[in-house]
Order: sequence, then structure tokens, then C-alpha cells
Amino acid sequence: MSNSNREFLLVSRPHGIPTDENFKLEINSRPVINDGEVLVETNYLSVDPYMRGRMSGVKTYTAPYELNKVLTGGVVGKIIESKNESFQVDDIVEGHLNWADYSVSNGKTLRKVDPDLAPISSALGVVGMTGLTAYFGLLDIGKPKEGETVVVSGAAGAVGTIVGQIAKIYGCRVVGIAGSNEKNKYLEDELGFEATINYKTENVKEALKEKCPDGVDIYFDNVGGDISDAVMSLLNFHARIAVCGIISEYNNIKPSTGPRIQRYLLNRSALMKAYIVRDYHERFDEGYEQLGEWVKEGKLTYRENIINGLENAPQAFLGLFHGKNIGKQLVCVRSES
Amino acid sequence: MSNSNREFLLVSRPHGIPTDENFKLEINSRPVINDGEVLVETNYLSVDPYMRGRMSGVKTYTAPYELNKVLTGGVVGKIIESKNESFQVDDIVEGHLNWADYSVSNGKTLRKVDPDLAPISSALGVVGMTGLTAYFGLLDIGKPKEGETVVVSGAAGAVGTIVGQIAKIYGCRVVGIAGSNEKNKYLEDELGFEATINYKTENVKEALKEKCPDGVDIYFDNVGGDISDAVMSLLNFHARIAVCGIISEYNNIKPSTGPRIQRYLLNRSALMKAYIVRDYHERFDEGYEQLGEWVKEGKLTYRENIINGLENAPQAFLGLFHGKNIGKQLVCVRSES
Repeated sequence: MSNSNREFLLVSRPHGIPTDENFKLEINSRPVINDGEVLVETNYLSVDPYMRGRMSGVKTYTAPYELNKVLTGGVVGKIIESKNESFQVDDIVEGHLNWADYSVSNGKTLRKVDPDLAPISSALGVVGMTGLTAYFGLLDIGKPKEGETVVVSGAAGAVGTIVGQIAKIYGCRVVGIAGSNEKNKYLEDELGFEATINYKTENVKEALKEKCPDGVDIYFDNVGGDISDAVMSLLNFHARIAVCGIISEYNNIKPSTGPRIQRYLLNRSALMKAYIVRDYHERFDEGYEQLGEWVKEGKLTYRENIINGLENAPQAFLGLFHGKNIGKQLVCVRSES
Repeated sequence: MSNSNREFLLVSRPHGIPTDENFKLEINSRPVINDGEVLVETNYLSVDPYMRGRMSGVKTYTAPYELNKVLTGGVVGKIIESKNESFQVDDIVEGHLNWADYSVSNGKTLRKVDPDLAPISSALGVVGMTGLTAYFGLLDIGKPKEGETVVVSGAAGAVGTIVGQIAKIYGCRVVGIAGSNEKNKYLEDELGFEATINYKTENVKEALKEKCPDGVDIYFDNVGGDISDAVMSLLNFHARIAVCGIISEYNNIKPSTGPRIQRYLLNRSALMKAYIVRDYHERFDEGYEQLGEWVKEGKLTYRENIINGLENAPQAFLGLFHGKNIGKQLVCVRSES
């Protein structure tokens, strides 16, 4: 255990694409815990596109990150000190903690992770917030039925890869849109997607027409922008659109413009519902249980893209906007020991 | 009873705003009925914005009108001949029939109207498709709760006036957007809307901010376009948008463009659902009953704008796109006798 604690602060708000200058790594003393608290040593840190929204000063569904304060996100780590009777030293936990070597928690929002069930990093991905995001968005908004066509954008990302696999568990035909042939090969060969589209090299609208001959029943949207525009004219009657993210838009200074979609929704009595995973917090246990079971049964596989070193967290985060990751992007701050 | 039958045909598809030349009034013989059929003499004919969609050749939620065939729409009329044991001569009925003096029906989709309960024209409006459209869109998609703010566009139209009144029955604060001070005076003074906005003379976005100090919980959209854009940044968390119509768009040759709305929905976990009243056909009886009761109790009032003469049906229809009507626009083909 070190006596110092590296912590990443947000020191300025990004205007457009974030840069190194928005972040600052500070070295402080390892924090001291009070009664009721625990000290968590970070193993893995999750970087997620939604964090870009919190870096802006705008109030959205989550409070913005405060300037000159430590950034926070999903963390898996080990309890190394405990003054809370619910936690013992060496417990592995997951929670919303600091971009730092050490975080203090009162334990209320920590979840214990069983390291014998699966690699502990999966508590940030497939059996963590990422998995829950895919699970509730697809099932509660999409309501997939056997034989339906599901289109997933950002298909090779952390959420997209899980959405596609759950859709397949439900007997759907899955078409993924991603940004490289390597990603699409993974989606088709390893995850069994029926078809894929490379949005960087193909005309998405034409490709969708060809690859969705029966139209689109569910569109799971991680990206927004013109890829989403292209899906609209292919919607089937009573189609459902789950708006999970708009990665193509987070770095825009002004909202982009495109064809207004009311017409397309109206022609098909379609539904578009945006959500954040927290909307479903009362059902998280159900989600964890089902996702864990599917992983155990081999129905849900996952891939992680791990960058080593807390000092590389901003780079890992920025990589999300350049399509660098297949599956879940993590930062390994300290290997499990 | 006349031996001739005037019938309006669609003879060309409008490109942009429809003109007289798209319609042709033909005089044919009064039709002869077969076993199982009835002959209906038209009293009132409903003209509705959605008909513009059917005049285009595009397949949407309803089949397009066929060229050189008689136009159809909501009709209230009297049975003047019957070879169907479910209907007697002099029964008043409502159904989807021809823009004509006389229509033949097999009775399957006709609904009997009790002329002693309310003026028979109301079977096309407040206790007809119009009322059902308001009822199901607001209640099933909007799910109004006491104290919430409901914004209605096209507020002085047939559907809008009913939506606002039902929202008030549910204890909501109602803000209407319409196109004249006369309309807004009616909405505030006679229907009790809390506030109104004249979109022709006011900056809608600024006016909405002022008139919705607690944000917007439900947006009932009849118009689309930039009025709807203006509502987006005021949505509250878990806001609901019912997309009922896009009257600002029906005459556009190409879909219009505007700020993409996924960002606004995502920031508020909001829902946008488009619908047609037929989606709720299994619950029509519930709707008719409740609407009739509210009318009887004086909780739901309505206004009709009646143009006389079948020959003026196209003008009545075109008037919808120029904001000429307050409440339900009807054509009186033959007064009740």
C-alpha cells in the first residue's frame, strides 16, 4: 500500500473533443477513513461515452463533473481498510468511485463481487452497468420477439456487443453497424450477428435496405447522427427505438441537424424511448442474475480492451470517440493480487 | 331521395399543397344495394389532416387513396335502405364512407348513433374518431398526472381542444399553441387553458420558457416542425411526447430538417411515441363511453366549424392547412330531417 494517492482531476471543460489539457493527475496523500467507511484500492476503472456529457457544464440526467474535483466512474477494487461491518479487508467490490489509486466509500452503493464466479473486471462490463444497460434497453424498450430484425449501432462497443447477443438469445435476426471490418468480423464470426455494415466504407442506407429485407423492428441506438437517420425509413409498423447513446454527438458544440423524424415514427406508429440505466435501479438484481447466468451458460461472451496505468485513463477515454475498442474499454490501475 | 349521386374523386396526386385540380366531382347514379348491405345518405363528412398523407401515393399506416376512385372519410348519415337485419331505415350511423351523397356499406364497420344523446355531428368529433384520438394519445402515451404541465400544439384544432380539456380533467396545467389570438382567447376563456402561445406572433421558444416555468411533462404534438423543436429543450425528466400529427409537414415535398432530438430525449430519459387511433381499436368502446360521459357532465365541450355543401368539401379540407377552423371541421352534405 502506498502512502500517496494519484487522482485525476477535470481542470477545464472540453470544447468539442476533449484534450489532455482538460485533465490533471495530482498526487495527494492516501485518504484516511472514518467510522462506517472503507478504503478501496482500485483494480479496474471503466471509461464510458456518457462521461463526455458530464464533462460539459450542462445539467443533464446526471450532475456535471465539478471543475478541479476528482473524476469519478465505475471502479472494481479491493477493500484494504474497513471501519464498516458490512465489508472485510480483501473483499472485492464494485461502485462509482474515483479515478484514483484509492477511494473512500461509506459502502452504501458498493456491490460485492465474487472473484470465483468470473474475472472481477466483468463486474464493470457484462455483469455490470454495461450489461444492465444492454439488458434493460433491449428488453424493456425493444421488447424483442422471435424472428424480428434488430439493428444495433455502435455494435462492436461494450453495450452493442451485449445487445446483439441478448437479441440472439431472444431469437432475433441481428444486424450490426460498426466502423471496421475487423469489428464486423468479430460480430459475425464470434458473436453470430447475421449481418454487419461498415459505416466508414458502405452507404449505410443502401446497405441497411439490403441487409434488412423485412425492415427493422427494433433499433438499438448508441450513436445518433446520420447513421440513425438512415434507419428511419426502414422502420416496421410498431417499431421500437431504444436511444442509449449518441456517441457521434457528444463532442459537438451545437446539436446537429437532420431530417425530422416525427414523420417516420408517425408512418409506422413507432416508439422512441431514451433511457439511462439508473431508470431501472429497482430491477438491477434481476439483471445481474440473468446476465451472470447467460455468461455461465456460454450464451453471452465478452471482450475487454484493457489499457494499463491510471496515467493513461484520459487516453482510454478519448479512444472511445475514435472507435478504438472492441467490447468494453477498461483501465487496469493495479492488477489483482 | 335523389336518383343521382355526387361523388368526389381524387384525380391527381398533390405535389405540395393540394389544389382544386386534384379533385373532381362526378355525378353517377344512386347505387343499388345487395343482400346484407345498407344505403347511407350522408349528413356530415369529416375532413382531417391525415387525409393529406393518403393523397400521396406513399404507403404509410393507411393505404393511399387510389387515383380516379371516390375519396373516403368519416361520415355520419341515415340509413335509407336496408337489406341487413342489423339496421333499420332511419337509423343514424357513423362509419368510414364516401365523399358522396350516398354510400353503400355491408354494415360491419358502421356504428349506430343515438340522435337523442347529442347532435349527430358529434359522432365525428368529440365522441368520434377525433375524441378517441385525443383520449388514447393523451392517456395511453402521455399518462397525465395531477399538477403536470401539458403542452398541446395545434391546440385549437379538433384533437387539440379535446386533449387540453381531458388534461384539465386529470388536473394538469395546460399550455396551448395555436395560430391566432381569437383561437387562444377561446382556449383560455372557454376551455380554461392556463396559458396560450400565438406561434405566428410570438417567439415560441421564449414564450414556452415563460409559460412553462416548471418545464414540460407531456407534449401532445399535432404539428411537428419548428414548433416541436422549440419544446425539446424544456422537457422534464421522464417526459412523454405523443406524436399525433405533423400538419406543418404534410404538404412538404421532402422531409424538413431540424435539430436532431435524440440528445434532448436522452438528457431527460424521455419517450416519444407516434400512433394512429386504430392502434387502440380494441378499446374504442371504453373511449366512446368515457367521452360521452364527460360531454354529458359538461366537462368536455366542443366547437364545430361547418361548411355547407358536398361541393365545398375540398375547400373545407384545404382550410385545415391554413388554420381556418376552431374545433372540428365538418362538411354538411344534407341537414338532418
